[in-house]
Amino acid sequence: MNPLTILKIGGNVIDNPKALTRFLTTFSMLPDTKLLVHGGGKIATDVAQKLGVETTMIDGRRITDKPMLNVVTMVYGGLVNKQIVSQLQSLECNAIGLTGADAGIIKSTKRPVKDIDYGFVGDISEIDSGRIQAFTREGLVPIFAPITYAETGDLLNTNADTLASAIACDMIYHNDVTLVYCFEKKGVLANPDDETSVINQLTPDQYREHKAADNINKGMIPKLDNAFAALSAGVKRVIICHADEVEAALTGQAGTTLRS
Amino acid sequence: MNPLTILKIGGNVIDNPKALTRFLTTFSMLPDTKLLVHGGGKIATDVAQKLGVETTMIDGRRITDKPMLNVVTMVYGGLVNKQIVSQLQSLECNAIGLTGADAGIIKSTKRPVKDIDYGFVGDISEIDSGRIQAFTREGLVPIFAPITYAETGDLLNTNADTLASAIACDMIYHNDVTLVYCFEKKGVLANPDDETSVINQLTPDQYREHKAADNINKGMIPKLDNAFAALSAGVKRVIICHADEVEAALTGQAGTTLRS
Repeated sequence: MNPLTILKIGGNVIDNPKALTRFLTTFSMLPDTKLLVHGGGKIATDVAQKLGVETTMIDGRRITDKPMLNVVTMVYGGLVNKQIVSQLQSLECNAIGLTGADAGIIKSTKRPVKDIDYGFVGDISEIDSGRIQAFTREGLVPIFAPITYAETGDLLNTNADTLASAIACDMIYHNDVTLVYCFEKKGVLANPDDETSVINQLTPDQYREHKAADNINKGMIPKLDNAFAALSAGVKRVIICHADEVEAALTGQAGTTLRS
Repeated sequence: MNPLTILKIGGNVIDNPKALTRFLTTFSMLPDTKLLVHGGGKIATDVAQKLGVETTMIDGRRITDKPMLNVVTMVYGGLVNKQIVSQLQSLECNAIGLTGADAGIIKSTKRPVKDIDYGFVGDISEIDSGRIQAFTREGLVPIFAPITYAETGDLLNTNADTLASAIACDMIYHNDVTLVYCFEKKGVLANPDDETSVINQLTPDQYREHKAADNINKGMIPKLDNAFAALSAGVKRVIICHADEVEAALTGQAGTTLRS
């Protein structure tokens, strides 16, 4: 099957215009069929503050009341998404910016209230992978903002890592999928205090060993659990690397490559 | 050729959630191939004010410095566009929100500085009508925010009336095009002080007569000049009507229909 590379960038790249331009320049030149999922960054928090909308985070997740949903829709779906698209267009990459609502590509359901009311937060229920494939076949490069929609017509804030992984898991029926998480470190570290201790390859067994030895930074564990779940679901490989090292990571020369 | 209806709604509809829902419900049920161009409304001005970005208007056009461009991109390209798209999705209309940058559909050039520096304002230079047709053929309903892009990668604020008319003029090679401007009055009035004096049909000759007799509201003249230019270019008909009367206007039962 035709290879597809799905990249995810987070706030640390988006908040740094030079880093973003470096990343987008690399992204625009990647030869395979590709798509990008971006997070939000601090801009949403800054805009919210100026608009008098209070930011509440619980366990690293934003609580999204209606005013915050509007901020997130503006900043992620508008400002960040369209700046990325126009920059990619100037790099001759035929980007198309999308939220889950556009072309009905990603449906979700509002997270049920248990201990915590996350507000307008969506858990993905259905992805139209055929539409994504149709776009990529037409030469378009989808750029997803982390916003989905419910059948009620509500927009819903959705975690960008989860979105990237869910798209990857659904695209396996059309493509050989590589999922690349770009973040601020050079990969998964064997010693969280040593930036040079990047683990180049990680199998589920090795991951269990590293976890048992308490080597893995706690913040990385949900990301890695998610990544191994994607591999079990049929994604060919998951790469975790620095946003500046995507090209090298894709050939195994940098970052951490996870294989099942 | 397959008919295509292009509708344009402005701030007065967008600023009124109930009016917007009424309009979108009608829009979702229109049987022909269709697309929507929306303006901005007061939300951009409100958001700008709260963010400490000053709004300057000259001759009804917004001066768009960089902070204002960011506001416009957030509000038009994000909030307004995505709220319309998700509401249409809930009405089973397969909407896809687009700025001109998305899929490189609408290129423009930054307006040259003469007497006035409009800032990041774009004059449309090229429309990929083939891409618009491809989307409509796939059953998608494009929803355009009034933002275009330059080859430099800059997003540019673009007048929504002009955008609707430019798309209409380029789609004539693919479709029999009807262009519908929805606004707050019931049509072109023979007497600006009498809301019931709607002119049902208007030819270029009749328009000249009404203009000579000083019957036409001055604010309407650029809109009408633009509309007759679209007819000269090959658009089949232009309708000017109230957003609540689109269905009746499309069968000539309301609003003003302009024919060449």
